[in-house]
Parts: sequence; structure tokens; C-alpha cells
Amino acid sequence: MKFNYYMPTKILFGPGKLNDLAGENLPGKKALIVISAGTSMKKYGYLNRLEGILKKKEIEYVIFDKILPNPVKSHIMEGAELARKENCDFVFGLGGGSSIDSAKSIAVMAKNPGDYWDYISGGSGKGMPLENGALPIIAITTTAGTGTEADPWTVITKEETNEKIGFGCADTFPTLSVVDPELMVTVPKHLTAYQGFDALFHATEGYIANIATPISDAYALKSIELIAKYLPICVKDGENIKARTQVALANTLSGFVESISSCTSEHSMEHALSAYYSELPHGAGLIMLSESYYTYFASKVSDRFKVMAKAMGVDVANLSEDERPMAFVKALIRLQEECGVNNLKMSDYGIKREMIPTFAENAHNTMGGLFDVDPYTLTFEDTIEIMTNAYK
Amino acid sequence: MKFNYYMPTKILFGPGKLNDLAGENLPGKKALIVISAGTSMKKYGYLNRLEGILKKKEIEYVIFDKILPNPVKSHIMEGAELARKENCDFVFGLGGGSSIDSAKSIAVMAKNPGDYWDYISGGSGKGMPLENGALPIIAITTTAGTGTEADPWTVITKEETNEKIGFGCADTFPTLSVVDPELMVTVPKHLTAYQGFDALFHATEGYIANIATPISDAYALKSIELIAKYLPICVKDGENIKARTQVALANTLSGFVESISSCTSEHSMEHALSAYYSELPHGAGLIMLSESYYTYFASKVSDRFKVMAKAMGVDVANLSEDERPMAFVKALIRLQEECGVNNLKMSDYGIKREMIPTFAENAHNTMGGLFDVDPYTLTFEDTIEIMTNAYK
Repeated sequence: MKFNYYMPTKILFGPGKLNDLAGENLPGKKALIVISAGTSMKKYGYLNRLEGILKKKEIEYVIFDKILPNPVKSHIMEGAELARKENCDFVFGLGGGSSIDSAKSIAVMAKNPGDYWDYISGGSGKGMPLENGALPIIAITTTAGTGTEADPWTVITKEETNEKIGFGCADTFPTLSVVDPELMVTVPKHLTAYQGFDALFHATEGYIANIATPISDAYALKSIELIAKYLPICVKDGENIKARTQVALANTLSGFVESISSCTSEHSMEHALSAYYSELPHGAGLIMLSESYYTYFASKVSDRFKVMAKAMGVDVANLSEDERPMAFVKALIRLQEECGVNNLKMSDYGIKREMIPTFAENAHNTMGGLFDVDPYTLTFEDTIEIMTNAYK
Repeated sequence: MKFNYYMPTKILFGPGKLNDLAGENLPGKKALIVISAGTSMKKYGYLNRLEGILKKKEIEYVIFDKILPNPVKSHIMEGAELARKENCDFVFGLGGGSSIDSAKSIAVMAKNPGDYWDYISGGSGKGMPLENGALPIIAITTTAGTGTEADPWTVITKEETNEKIGFGCADTFPTLSVVDPELMVTVPKHLTAYQGFDALFHATEGYIANIATPISDAYALKSIELIAKYLPICVKDGENIKARTQVALANTLSGFVESISSCTSEHSMEHALSAYYSELPHGAGLIMLSESYYTYFASKVSDRFKVMAKAMGVDVANLSEDERPMAFVKALIRLQEECGVNNLKMSDYGIKREMIPTFAENAHNTMGGLFDVDPYTLTFEDTIEIMTNAYK
């Protein structure tokens, strides 16, 4: 049993915690605030509240509001240019995973020369080391899905080559993160479900990964338990702050899992889908793959599947030995039914079955590293099989 | 549910992990190595191994080898003077809790003026803020007891006033910690037991504390489970690396608990005992207090006690409702029997029953803050009652 543990982010967690940002030492005099191109941050007053806090603290700021749901490299370069021009000392990511991930990547490119893809490993990335670190990053998350507030990862798409690749290092952990479930009550039903399942899969993948540790296991099982219990409530009643808080906690714990253990190839496969079909929400893509993916692994790592089933609330002890591994998959489908996301189809997003070999190749080429931490090594053909079985 | 999470230390965990220190970026060109006045670090070659790694990395070092089992303020001032004189960039604590805690306090005083007690809150401390932070701290722990490698705390005694007070802030988290169970196989039986119970009580106190969070709970319960299972094996067979590894993990998890939740008044009471009787090992003092302390709280927070009993392996569901809260205390006594530490007596260390009011006053005066996080507020008389019941 050997591992490294590192998750240096300070986290302010709980309903109303955004207000506590006013009492924190912030790492500079001028900030870049990164938000999405959508309207929510303005409409619900979250941007206004952040601006109010910064004004009181006499911290200047500039807003960059172009981020897309599947964020793209050109916006990273543009945001970094703005941060440099305006001499920003640090970067806020305010919003969902796309805004916070973009803030991380912008923080990197504000301090390093060349192109963002110079530093990416996988695909056409050059895998160069970051010479100059990154600006300090502060994450204020308004969704419970990516766990990015508690991990170093940022996922950006290079549009021209359909490469959607994760990147992260010690410099891309947020210095400070605010997880305030009150900012999450406005997330619509379907996104609540997609994001919640993204968080769930960070936990389940991190639990079956061959580099899982006892510490990541403790986080993962707690996260799985909380999502199984509280996500359906959040989907049905978005204003339920108690349920939102539990799912927010599950999501942050899943971020810890991603920091210490790792996602597995399910994420590589999904990135391939949404790299080509940017309208496909990441969480929806994962849900589409999940039954096939976990069915494939159930017999390969049956012990871990039994424990995950138990964490989902299944009375595993009362099942026959044969039924136990697949009990997790059944519980997963049931949870998808409860959250109204059991009938998602790739074909609804225009995804063609003939593209599956292209996706499988993209998955192995761009995020091949995640296949190395799978609990059982998938061949290229296995990947095609899993994706084909998932196709509807 | 509101809390702040912060535990920024990078941890290299596992058998043989000391070797990985060679691959880490260290925070400077010259180090102060703080070790105890005992012989173990030299005799077992641990100091030699650290020196070898530093030489290879071309990092200079100076050794300060005066630390006592209950470390004292005068050595902190002397070590800090040495660090300043020698222009050390960072400080290693190599050894048990006393060496690592001393390294933390020396790192503070190497950068701040005046007396160490100027910065202490409680007792005759002046509670001044640290203006200049601290030198970076690297902990290499050779025991499984204090959790100091994964928390900001350092406990030092001011000899002339019998004040043994904990101190810690964001600057006193180690930057990097090595937890290598291979360095723990040489710890003798009785110290293995004392230290293991110290780790256990960090978990149990942090679990019953009124500021416990779901995250600290997850750490605490895992730690309790591992100690109950593996500490008796370590005591019986110190060379059992598997058991040593599990107890080392439990100890590090207990450090996390101390970082996020808190110790309670059990620690205040023990500090009073060992402040007056410096020969009394901290863990032994805690064991002496524990039956009386936990019996007192069992009925007050019975739900938490049931969960702790379950974590200790008790089949709580098969007990009557009445028996459940005290089941934890019974399991605790059984564990003490298994580890051969069930007959420790204060009188064996020369502690006088008449001193109990003095100890109780000292506990409230020096570490009064921990009484505020107890799950039920103890009066001065309650404290005397608990300590009197513990007296043998």
C-alpha cells in the first residue's frame, strides 16, 4: 500500500458560505473573473454578489464572459491575453465546471508562453512542462458535478482536431474554493441529474481504478452513498437545500477522489463523444455509456462492485453470490430512472453508430492514460464493444 | 452543515516511501534537521538515510538533537537561534511527535521575533499573531501516534509554569510529510501501544466534537476501525509491516481529523498531567483518563457512541438499546487489555490524588478552548469528577 496524497485547496463549504469570502485573504489586488457566455451568473445575482465582495475588499476586476458549456482552447488563449493585458494577479472561476476549468487553464496561459496545447499530454499536445506555474485560482462552484473545485483537473477542447483532453498539475489546484449549495438551487432538473451522475462516476471510476487508495475509497463510498440518497430529491425538488447540500458534499468528495485516485476510461470514451458533438452535455454522455461500461467490468472486479452496490443502499448480503456484482449496475439504472435520465440516446444528439471506431480511436489517442488505470486492460476492440452496446 | 476544509500537506505514504524524498523538490538549499536527544534516529540509520538523500541533492544541513519526549520551550528558542545563525531555508522534523512538533515551533521562531510564548493562546501566552509566517516544514514520522504529519498542531511545554499548550495555524502545516511504516518497526511494544491510543483518541475526540463534519467523520471512523483491528497485532509483532502500515494510515487519518475537526477536553486534561509529570508519556496519560472520560460522555451523545462501537467491530445491532452507548467504552477497555495497557496507574508515575484540582484548573486555563468543542459542556466540577474517577 503506497500512495501520494495531495489536495491543498482550502474549501469553504455550506449554505451561505459565499459571504465568508469577504473574510479571506485574496492573492492579489486585481482579479480576472471567468464566467460562461450564458445568462445565469447575472440573472441569479451571483456575479453581482462576487463583485460586491471584491469592491468592499478594494480588489479590482475584469470580467471574461465567453465560456461555452464544452469550453474551447481559443477562449483560453483569449482569456489569458486579457489577464496579461490587464495585469491580473489571480483568476476567479464562477459557475459550473466549464467556467472553473477555463479559469484554471487561463491561469496557466497567463503565465506561460506559446499555445495551451503545448502543455497538453495526449493527442496532438506537446506535453511540455509548465515553466512558470499559474496565477492563483479561486473557484466558486454553482453546480454539483465536476468536482473541479477540489481537484487539479481542467478539461478543454481543441476545436479543430476534436480533442477534449484533461490537464492538471500542482499549480492548477484552486487556492481557495467556495461550495455554497444556495448557489445550486437554480440549476434546472435535467442538468442537476447530468451533473450529479458526473460526480457519481468520478467516485465509481476512482473506486474501481487500479490506483485507488484507502483514503480515496473512503471519499468515493461516501460520495456514492450521498448521491444515491439525495440526487433524486434534488432533481424532484431543486429548492431542497438539505438535499442540495448533501449532493454538493458528494461532488466535492468526488473531486478529492479525482485528486488522489483517478477517473478511468469511461471518461476517455465520453470525451470522445462530446469532442465531436459539443452539444452533448458531459454528464449525459457518461450516463449513455454507463450501463454498458459497468456491466463490462462487473465480473472483472466483482468485490469492488459489491461494495459499491452496498454504498448505493442495496442489501447485498441478502442476494445470491451470482447476483451481487451486477447489483450495482441494477442500482445505477434504478437511480437513472428515479432521476428521469434512463432514456438518453446517442442518436438523439445526432451521433452515428458508424462513428464508434473513430470515437474509440480518439479515446485511446487523447486520454489513453485513463485506460492504464482501468481495473482490467481494455483492448481497442473491447472499447468498441462497450461503446456499441451503449448505442441507442 | 457548514465547515472549512484545509489540509494542504503533500503526503508520501507507504513502506519504502522515504526513498521517494529523493525525487521531491525541497524548499531551499540548507536545512535544519530536528531530532530527539535519544539514540534511535542514529542507531537505526534513519538519520543516515536522510543525510544521504540531502547530500545527493546537494542540500546542506545542520542537526539539532536535543528534543525531549515532552518537548520544552527552551529548546525551541535554541533551535530557532541555530536555524537563524546557520541561515537555514527549511526545517526537517525526523522522529516522533516531539521532534516534528519541535520542528514546527522552531520554524515559527526562526522567522518571528520575541519569545515563543508571545504567540501562544491560553495560559500565560500572549496570543500575538505571527507576522512573518514560518520556514517550510518537512515531517518524517517514525511513530504512529500524534498525526502531526497531517495537521498544523505543535505541543510544547513551558517548563517554569507547567503549561503544555498546542499551537497551530496555516503556516505550521508541513509542506511535505513522509509516512514510511518501515521506519516504525523498531518502536518498542509499550510505546507502540501508547502512541496507537493517542491516534485513536484523536479520532474519537474529533468524532464526538461538536464541530465534527461529514468529512472528518469519514476519516475518524476509518481510523478507529483500523486501530481496533491492527494495533494489537503491532504490539504483539512489531515487525508485521502490514499491521504497521494500517496503523500508520489510521494515525495519518487522525491527523486529518485534528486538522478539520478538533481534539476535545480529554487532551486538555492529559496535557495538565504531563505538564507537571514530564516522565508521563502523553498516550499513557490519555489511556489513564479514557475509561472515565468516555463513560461520562456515553449517555450524553449516545448516537455517536453507537457508531464508534460499530467502527470498533462491535455487533451493536444485537445489543439492547441500553447497552449500546457503553459498548464503545467496553470495546475500548478490551482493546487496552489486548495491547497490555489496561493497568496503567497515575500513582505509578508519582501523581498525587490531591493534585487533581490543580490539574483541572491547569486544563481549563491552558487548553480551555477544547472544552468549548466538547459535545456537552463540562463544568470545573465535572472535570474534577472525571479525573478523580480516572485516578488509580
